[in-house]
Amino acid sequence: MKVRLRILPQCLGQHLQRRTASTSTSSAKVIFSGIQPTGIPHLGNYLGALQQWKRMQDEAAPDTKLIYSVVDLHAITLPQQVGQLRQWRREMLAALLAIGLDPQRSVIFYQSAVQAHSELMWILSCTASMGYLSRMTQWKSKLSLSENASVTDEKAKSALKLGLFSYPVLQAADILVHRATHVPVGEDQRQHLEFARECATNFNHSFGNGSKLLVPPETILSPAKRVMSLQSPSSKMSKSDPNPASRILLTDSPSQIRKKILSALTDSTNAVTYDPISRPGVSNLLSLLSLFENKKPEELAAKMASQGAKLKDLKERVAEGVVKAMDGVGERFKEIMARDGGKYLEGVAEDGASKARESADKTMRIVRESMGM
Amino acid sequence: MKVRLRILPQCLGQHLQRRTASTSTSSAKVIFSGIQPTGIPHLGNYLGALQQWKRMQDEAAPDTKLIYSVVDLHAITLPQQVGQLRQWRREMLAALLAIGLDPQRSVIFYQSAVQAHSELMWILSCTASMGYLSRMTQWKSKLSLSENASVTDEKAKSALKLGLFSYPVLQAADILVHRATHVPVGEDQRQHLEFARECATNFNHSFGNGSKLLVPPETILSPAKRVMSLQSPSSKMSKSDPNPASRILLTDSPSQIRKKILSALTDSTNAVTYDPISRPGVSNLLSLLSLFENKKPEELAAKMASQGAKLKDLKERVAEGVVKAMDGVGERFKEIMARDGGKYLEGVAEDGASKARESADKTMRIVRESMGM
Repeated sequence: MKVRLRILPQCLGQHLQRRTASTSTSSAKVIFSGIQPTGIPHLGNYLGALQQWKRMQDEAAPDTKLIYSVVDLHAITLPQQVGQLRQWRREMLAALLAIGLDPQRSVIFYQSAVQAHSELMWILSCTASMGYLSRMTQWKSKLSLSENASVTDEKAKSALKLGLFSYPVLQAADILVHRATHVPVGEDQRQHLEFARECATNFNHSFGNGSKLLVPPETILSPAKRVMSLQSPSSKMSKSDPNPASRILLTDSPSQIRKKILSALTDSTNAVTYDPISRPGVSNLLSLLSLFENKKPEELAAKMASQGAKLKDLKERVAEGVVKAMDGVGERFKEIMARDGGKYLEGVAEDGASKARESADKTMRIVRESMGM
Repeated sequence: MKVRLRILPQCLGQHLQRRTASTSTSSAKVIFSGIQPTGIPHLGNYLGALQQWKRMQDEAAPDTKLIYSVVDLHAITLPQQVGQLRQWRREMLAALLAIGLDPQRSVIFYQSAVQAHSELMWILSCTASMGYLSRMTQWKSKLSLSENASVTDEKAKSALKLGLFSYPVLQAADILVHRATHVPVGEDQRQHLEFARECATNFNHSFGNGSKLLVPPETILSPAKRVMSLQSPSSKMSKSDPNPASRILLTDSPSQIRKKILSALTDSTNAVTYDPISRPGVSNLLSLLSLFENKKPEELAAKMASQGAKLKDLKERVAEGVVKAMDGVGERFKEIMARDGGKYLEGVAEDGASKARESADKTMRIVRESMGM
């Protein structure tokens, strides 16, 4: 399972200012993002999304609203183990707090606690074209079908569930129900954001008489920043990889982190060069390093090569970077999971749900009223 | 637009007792039915559904729960005029009260006021098969497509919206969210009820460990009882017929009713015979009469013929039957619409919504908990 809405890079602040200056008519920004409950996040989740959520929170203007959701209603578009889902939701929530999201500053909530997400989903689905949804590619990739697959293909017919097929509409509802002005996403979610914009525009056209009942969100595209598996570096780092050495978890101790990085699969060439195609393992390490040292991986490789560095040197430097980036997060995670026998986390969830409901219900009153309901 | 869930005949009480004696394990019955907000009901709505809702209420055991919904979330699967939908919802609610439904005895509410319907719809959609839904026929008939049409046909692709395609899942949610044990339907809705049963059974199988988290409802099939247009008697009486003389409205005065029935399209044969194929107009009048006099139309025709009755005699008898059946309903409707400047109706809606929310939220707590959410 993966992060649905990937997050923009370090230059978020500038992006926001540049992109909205000309288009936004409302006053305050609303940033929305969601992540699936996949349990304790790994390094890929952390560097690809969570760390940036924190940065967005810290850099946001005082009147910017930040809304972060653990999107459990999306998780159930594929079969889940009940006990595991329950645990994974809690772990993801605790992780958001452990990395420094402040529940007083950001609205943090479980999607399933806010019924308005499903309600708006239904309303949007009454104008969402089946043809358009059929052409989307995510349901095909989740069922390992080709991009040309059709809903009437034998394999799709037997395996495809309505929820998986229609989840872009729920995703649009997630965003629109909170009147998000800015949604950071990875390339793979770009078409879904375009779809959300269309949903808003169509709704306003049908029911708004020109007024902005729903807010078409600005898409902020983050450059691809994929963290690959430490053991099969052609695949993304993933919770579902059977080999635990393939990923670093937020709760790993510094010594566990070092051990995993030092035993990362590379190749038999001992020099440091950046070549993602023929040297995926080494290149993945260089990409990681580039995130911590804010330089291009090619530059880092050239510099290290000129200094006669070996793979072991690279690995040690990467390990230090990861340990530093994750400093204290694992400890805080464990403390938050346990605080007040779990009651603290429940309280945060309830409080977040109540704020999110308020935000969503405001939109739903406008939506219902404008539709005559 | 038409009644979604048609209602069982006069022998409801017996039906219920017979059908549930062997299957029901829970104690009290829960009857659910819904009707689309199509404004002031016509004679077809009244005799086909509403009159029976009242009878169900009056004949139900004290511990039977009756839940009636004006299903506006279904109405929006086809485009609606905003002002008209607003008015039609109020009129349908007032009509339910005018025919004698008692908001103290029956839960009467607008579907859109209870978010749990949409929420359960999403959850059920995560296990609802696209193949199964594609084979359902209602979306095809609403788009005037053949029963063999596929979602990938050109016409379907351009016109079909997700909401129309997936509304059987919302209908299943409507029923299951209130733990309905008995749902009266017409033949055209039979496959949807089967689908709702399957949704419940699948859910219980996946999450219930054998316990009945959701209740598979008993289908009670009502014999077809179609009231046809007075002006084109081969079509059903319908709100959307451009000729107002084709239908009798609940608010028509006795003199208006008489006038419409006396000018009903029949044919040039003046004798009374029952022959739905070659004499649809006369046969429609006989069918109507049979509802009021509780005799078969063939019998009525034979008796009238033996008495030398003419079409005019038949029409006058039918007119008296309709006037009597509708006695006082139109007056009460107008009074209820106006009471307290409309505030009474609002209050009934709020009160019903609050009871329906309570009923639905009880189910949703079970559902969420059992899924790990």
